[in-house]
Amino acid sequence: MTNRRIFIKTGVFALLGGTTLASCQPKFNVTSTGVKPHLKMRFFPYELQLQHTFTVATYSRTTTPDVQVELEYDGIIGYGEASMPPYLGQSVESVTDFLSRVDIEQFDDPFRIEDIMAYLDTIEPSSKLQLGAKDDTAAKAAIDIALHDLVGKMLGAPWYKIWGLNPADAPDTTFTIGIDTPDVVREKTRECADRFNILKVKLGRDEQSDKEMIETIRSVTQLPIAIDANQGWKDRSYALDMIHWLKEQGIVMIEQPMPKEQVDDTAWVTEHSPLPVFADESMQRLVDVPKMKGVFHGINIKLMKCTGMREGWKMANLARALGMRVMIGCMTETSCACSAAAQLSPLVDFADLDGNLLISNDRFEGMKVVKGKITLNELPGIGIQPI
Amino acid sequence: MTNRRIFIKTGVFALLGGTTLASCQPKFNVTSTGVKPHLKMRFFPYELQLQHTFTVATYSRTTTPDVQVELEYDGIIGYGEASMPPYLGQSVESVTDFLSRVDIEQFDDPFRIEDIMAYLDTIEPSSKLQLGAKDDTAAKAAIDIALHDLVGKMLGAPWYKIWGLNPADAPDTTFTIGIDTPDVVREKTRECADRFNILKVKLGRDEQSDKEMIETIRSVTQLPIAIDANQGWKDRSYALDMIHWLKEQGIVMIEQPMPKEQVDDTAWVTEHSPLPVFADESMQRLVDVPKMKGVFHGINIKLMKCTGMREGWKMANLARALGMRVMIGCMTETSCACSAAAQLSPLVDFADLDGNLLISNDRFEGMKVVKGKITLNELPGIGIQPI
Repeated sequence: MTNRRIFIKTGVFALLGGTTLASCQPKFNVTSTGVKPHLKMRFFPYELQLQHTFTVATYSRTTTPDVQVELEYDGIIGYGEASMPPYLGQSVESVTDFLSRVDIEQFDDPFRIEDIMAYLDTIEPSSKLQLGAKDDTAAKAAIDIALHDLVGKMLGAPWYKIWGLNPADAPDTTFTIGIDTPDVVREKTRECADRFNILKVKLGRDEQSDKEMIETIRSVTQLPIAIDANQGWKDRSYALDMIHWLKEQGIVMIEQPMPKEQVDDTAWVTEHSPLPVFADESMQRLVDVPKMKGVFHGINIKLMKCTGMREGWKMANLARALGMRVMIGCMTETSCACSAAAQLSPLVDFADLDGNLLISNDRFEGMKVVKGKITLNELPGIGIQPI
Repeated sequence: MTNRRIFIKTGVFALLGGTTLASCQPKFNVTSTGVKPHLKMRFFPYELQLQHTFTVATYSRTTTPDVQVELEYDGIIGYGEASMPPYLGQSVESVTDFLSRVDIEQFDDPFRIEDIMAYLDTIEPSSKLQLGAKDDTAAKAAIDIALHDLVGKMLGAPWYKIWGLNPADAPDTTFTIGIDTPDVVREKTRECADRFNILKVKLGRDEQSDKEMIETIRSVTQLPIAIDANQGWKDRSYALDMIHWLKEQGIVMIEQPMPKEQVDDTAWVTEHSPLPVFADESMQRLVDVPKMKGVFHGINIKLMKCTGMREGWKMANLARALGMRVMIGCMTETSCACSAAAQLSPLVDFADLDGNLLISNDRFEGMKVVKGKITLNELPGIGIQPI
C-alpha cells in the first residue's frame, strides 16, 4: 500500500510536469501502445433540427446541413464539426467530398497543426469539381476543431488556458430574436429577456419592417441589442440614418450594414457611425483582416468561415494589434463548434454564440450560457463531452 | 504485479489525456499538495562572461549584465532571464528594482499569462525612478520566459509543440564574426566556417573598414553572410550603394541600415534594396510592427525588447499576416533565454541565436546548434535543464 501511495504521488507529480528528471523527459513520442500511431478520421452527415423556423433578410429554413468529424490518435478522440448554412455555398456533398480527399493518415503527430492546416489549403477545392462549394472552409474548420480537441486532451488542458486567457473575461452572448409576427416576436422576447443580457436582431428589410421589429422588441424590454443588417442596406445615407435611429433605440453595435461590394460606402458609414460597425460577409480569413482596417471598426470571426480555431486565434490577435474590435460568431451548430469558438471568447468585445441553443438535437454537452454569460468549463480540448 | 501494470497503463493513458471520464476531468485545479498555491519568484544578478571582447560600431565590452529569475508553483520551477546589453538602457539595478516591485504572489494560476503580462505593463517604469531603464522590457521578458517554462512543464510539452510548429522548420543560426584585426578575423572565420552555414557581421563604421571586414572574411569562406549595420549609415544613397556592393559579395540580408529616426530614408532604401531589409533598433513591441510595414521588408524579434515569448509569438504572426518577413535575434545570454527564443524559430526566415555560444559561464543546457542548424529538444517548457 505504501508503494502504491508513493507511485500515485510520483504519478501526480509527473502529471503536473514537475522538474524531476523523469517528468522532464518527452512524453508524446511514447504512446500507450508503445508504437507511434497515425491520425485516423471518421465523418458522417448530421442534419441539425432548428427549434424555430429561421428567417433572415434573404431566406428562411427549419434545418441546417452539418457533418460531424472525429479524429482518433492513440485511442484519444477529438471531435469536430462542419456546419453549412446555405449562404456559405457549402453542402454535405462538398464537405464529405473534400474530407474524403484528405489523407490525414500521413500525419503521425497531431501537434503539427500548422503543417496539417497548410496541407488542407493545398487540396483541390470542391468548387473546381462543380460541387458549388466556395473554398471548403467549413470542412477545414471541422478538422481544425477536432485537432484542437485532440491536442488539448493530450495536453490535459482547455484551449482558453493554453492560450493564457482568463475565462472570467468571457462576455455575455447575444441571442437572436428571429423575424416573425409582432405577437410571436413579443412572446419570444419575453422568454429571452429573462435568460440573456443582450439580444441580437437581423434587419436589412424595408424601413417599416426594420423599425417595427425594433419597436416590437422595445415594447417588451430595454435590454441592449446588437444588429446584423446582413448587407441589407444599399444606400449609405439611408444606412447612416438607420444607425442614428437605432442608437436612439439603445442598439449597441451594427454588423455588415451594406453589401460587401460597397467598400467605400461602408468605410464612409463607419467613419460617421455613432455605433461600432463590424465586418461579417466582407471578410473570411486572416488575409482579409488588414484590408478591413479603415472600412470597419471591428471583425466578426466565425470558425466555419476562417477554417477554425488556429486561424481564428491569429485573426483576433491581428485585429487587436491593428486597433480593431473583435466579435466571435457561429452558425447554427452543435455544442462542438460553439464550445470551440467559446475558447476564444475571453478575447472578444461581443459574442454571438447561440447556435447550439437554436437546435433540438445537440450531440454534446460543453460551453454553457449561465445568466446570459458564456461560461467555460475545465474539460481539456474544446471542453465537450458526448451526450 | 498485474495490479501495478494495470495502474501504469491507466496512468499513461490519463497522462496522454485519453477520453475516459477520469482523464476528461480538470487537472490543474488540483495540485500535489491538495491546496491551490500562489506563484513565488526568486531572482539574482548573474554577470555573463564573454569568450571574446565584443565590439560593434558604438562600443566594446567583455561582460554582459544579466539577472536570473525563477518562478515556483506547486514545486515546479520555471526559469527566466533578463540580459541587459548597455545600449538597451537597462541595468542590474533597474531590473532588480522592477522585479522587487512585482507582486507575483497575487496570482494563483500561472496559466493566466495574459493577465500577468498586462499587470506588469501597469507597474511604474524604473525610468520614472531615475534608474535609467527605458521600459523594463528585459525584466518583463524574464518573468514571461519563466512563466512559459513553468506552464510548458505543467502541460508536459515544449512551446514549439504547443504552438503547433514543426521543429524541422527551425533554420540555421547565424554566428557573429566580431570586428577585429584581419588576422584574428580570418582565424575566427576559419573556426566558424566549419560549424555554421551562415555568418553575421556587424558593419556601420567607415566605408573602408566595412569593406575590409567583408573582404577579409571572403578571403576565407564563401558562406552566406547576414549584415547588421546597427544604424551606422547616415546617407540613404551611401546605404543603397553599400547594399548593392554587399549583394555582389554574397550577402543575403541587411539589418537596420540607417538610424531609427530616418524613417523615410529607410523606406526609400528598402524600396530600392536588392536585399531584404530588417528592422532592429526601429522597433520593440507588438504595437510597432504595423508601423514598420512599408519601411522594412521584415522585423527582428528579440525577447528582451518585446517583453518575451507571448508578445514575440504575436509579433511573428502579425508580421506574417502583413506579408512581412521575420527574424529572431537575441542578446548575449544563457541557454535559458536563447532556448526560449528558439521555440519560435520554426516560424522565422532568419535566426540569430548565438548568444549562449558567446559566453563562458552558461547555467543551462537547452537548444543546440547542430551543423549550424537550430535543433530543438522535446523537454517541456522552454526546453532547458540546469547544468
